[in-house]
Amino acid sequence: MDITRLHEAGEKIKEMLKKTGYYSEPNTYQPDLSDGKISFSYAYPIKAFEKFLGYYDSENRVAFNPSISMRTDFSFCLAACRYRKDEDKDTIVLDGESDEKYYRKAKFALDKFRHEYSIKGSFDFYIRRYRRYQRAKGLSESSAVAAAVSRALVSTVFGDDAAADDVFVSRYARLVSGSGTRAAHDGISMWLSYPGMDIKDCAAFKVGENQKRIHYGVFPKYSDIPTDSAHRVAMNSIFYDRWVEEKFNNVLRLIPERFDIDDLLKIGESDMLRLNSVLMSEGLVIQTAESIRIIHEILKFKSKNDGLYFTADTGPSIAIFSSDRSIIDEFRENVEDEYLDGTYNFDEYKSKMSEFSREVQDYFMHISTR
Amino acid sequence: MDITRLHEAGEKIKEMLKKTGYYSEPNTYQPDLSDGKISFSYAYPIKAFEKFLGYYDSENRVAFNPSISMRTDFSFCLAACRYRKDEDKDTIVLDGESDEKYYRKAKFALDKFRHEYSIKGSFDFYIRRYRRYQRAKGLSESSAVAAAVSRALVSTVFGDDAAADDVFVSRYARLVSGSGTRAAHDGISMWLSYPGMDIKDCAAFKVGENQKRIHYGVFPKYSDIPTDSAHRVAMNSIFYDRWVEEKFNNVLRLIPERFDIDDLLKIGESDMLRLNSVLMSEGLVIQTAESIRIIHEILKFKSKNDGLYFTADTGPSIAIFSSDRSIIDEFRENVEDEYLDGTYNFDEYKSKMSEFSREVQDYFMHISTR
Repeated sequence: MDITRLHEAGEKIKEMLKKTGYYSEPNTYQPDLSDGKISFSYAYPIKAFEKFLGYYDSENRVAFNPSISMRTDFSFCLAACRYRKDEDKDTIVLDGESDEKYYRKAKFALDKFRHEYSIKGSFDFYIRRYRRYQRAKGLSESSAVAAAVSRALVSTVFGDDAAADDVFVSRYARLVSGSGTRAAHDGISMWLSYPGMDIKDCAAFKVGENQKRIHYGVFPKYSDIPTDSAHRVAMNSIFYDRWVEEKFNNVLRLIPERFDIDDLLKIGESDMLRLNSVLMSEGLVIQTAESIRIIHEILKFKSKNDGLYFTADTGPSIAIFSSDRSIIDEFRENVEDEYLDGTYNFDEYKSKMSEFSREVQDYFMHISTR
Repeated sequence: MDITRLHEAGEKIKEMLKKTGYYSEPNTYQPDLSDGKISFSYAYPIKAFEKFLGYYDSENRVAFNPSISMRTDFSFCLAACRYRKDEDKDTIVLDGESDEKYYRKAKFALDKFRHEYSIKGSFDFYIRRYRRYQRAKGLSESSAVAAAVSRALVSTVFGDDAAADDVFVSRYARLVSGSGTRAAHDGISMWLSYPGMDIKDCAAFKVGENQKRIHYGVFPKYSDIPTDSAHRVAMNSIFYDRWVEEKFNNVLRLIPERFDIDDLLKIGESDMLRLNSVLMSEGLVIQTAESIRIIHEILKFKSKNDGLYFTADTGPSIAIFSSDRSIIDEFRENVEDEYLDGTYNFDEYKSKMSEFSREVQDYFMHISTR
């Protein structure tokens, strides 16, 4: 891997983002802590066009390359965070259960966060995911969780102004899950990340409106193939370096064309195939019989029709896109698979807020008196 | 693509093959033509460990990299070739039918062959494939066809000594199908091929006995995904260069270890995954729902058991290997898929020879009197 060249390309990307107004110097905030303070937040998951796997600096969660995605509405996450001055043990409840995996992720992020701001005390998190599907893999629920918990934490520690600063929120979402950076924004956003960068810039920036011209949806598919190791597996591939290099080329092209959505759709498709390739080359086959069948249907349809695009993240759920609604409808006539239409309505979370608040009060009261 | 480096690595491989006795200067033969002479031959298909896609020199059928395979018994091909001094149109009958695709392949090879030896006249070919399965893709039938027709042609034109010279036969099999070079040998063989090589060396050499220590078999799977474009598609992939480079490294390692079969099995598995990756990265997904399902079964089994290997060529039929028969039996208990046990008995073709000879006589008599 030619780290120097990636660093230089990354610096060039940052310069171009500055000139085009997408990048601004990150704001700083001072902690304003109050024992027992509770904050609420929400986040929606993203669908990546320019994807990422593999950390250049896993301690600081710096990815090898920038990545780009758009917000989707296939699920959402609500989170609440409470600060407790005199406790020394954080608590995490996800979907009603203490989850050891999420606890470890949160502990890692919180320890770094506390260290950065010299904060003592602990945080309690109560988190719930609300899905429009029964079960599926690769719909980026973890990005929504990361963004929601980060915003709740930022709100509790720094107050409303900081919590409204998506770039600032994305910086800490990163410590939970890389793709969480982008889930801190609406619309289209890019996580600026590259080897040897200034860590304070390692955050997501908004690079495109929440446009409504593109119709999208997803075929949710389940899989029990473990993908926890995907970052490491990808980096072991002989194809990894070439994959990463090409991403810098794509981003350098996208900035002057102002992240043209049609180009992003093409990149999303091509990068899904490459991501699958990189993992497959190391024996991690993330598609299932079900998803391969629908991919073949899509490829067959595409060979006869223009204007349909597809993508997927590290899982078998396949998303489709078109600027022409009728193309999506026509494709769907060929398949009987469960389909979720994507929308640009991101208000659904509001309907769950009061129920969620009651759960939060119950939970926080319970652990306070334990 | 660093052609100079590949050329140098290829030259080094040739030198090493010379020193270890695998390579010998190709023999030359003089045509000894007799009008109406008919020769018969047979060939078995191969299963590749180190695979190839993409021609460096498509006019001369020089591949970008050396490739290695072993002979299998899942099918065989019988071929007859007749020389006709005063005819100017070749004829090809494959499985009882004139096949335009095979005619074009044969015409290309025959024109080059006639040019090399200043031969006038035409050749009639009668070819039949005999399969142990109903239908499947990726079982390398074309390699057996190429080797069988090449040997029949060599026998008709040069006589028995040349026909018994597998290296010489492989040189012309190459003009029909690259993998046909290796099908001209029994046991394990390598097609020496690299950019800028001396064309006379572009042939297959035997590099390992027809050992019987390894148990093998195949799950035949059918697919209607066209793979005619696979060579071109592979070369378009951003991963192609890296894939090819690594093959030279593998071969350079294999020669001093005398093409150790255990290493070949590992390479066969890893290279199958990479070949699929290279094609997938360009949108050619050669696995089907059926084959992906069995690949997942194999990967799951492998995660708990040592000693099972798999591979596949450009198609969904999946081959498995083990030095331990009980490992194969244990794996097969998990799946209900049709399975063909591979053997080292390559005499089955004899039982079809008399029937085939009658068909050949009928056909050649028929076209003589037309």
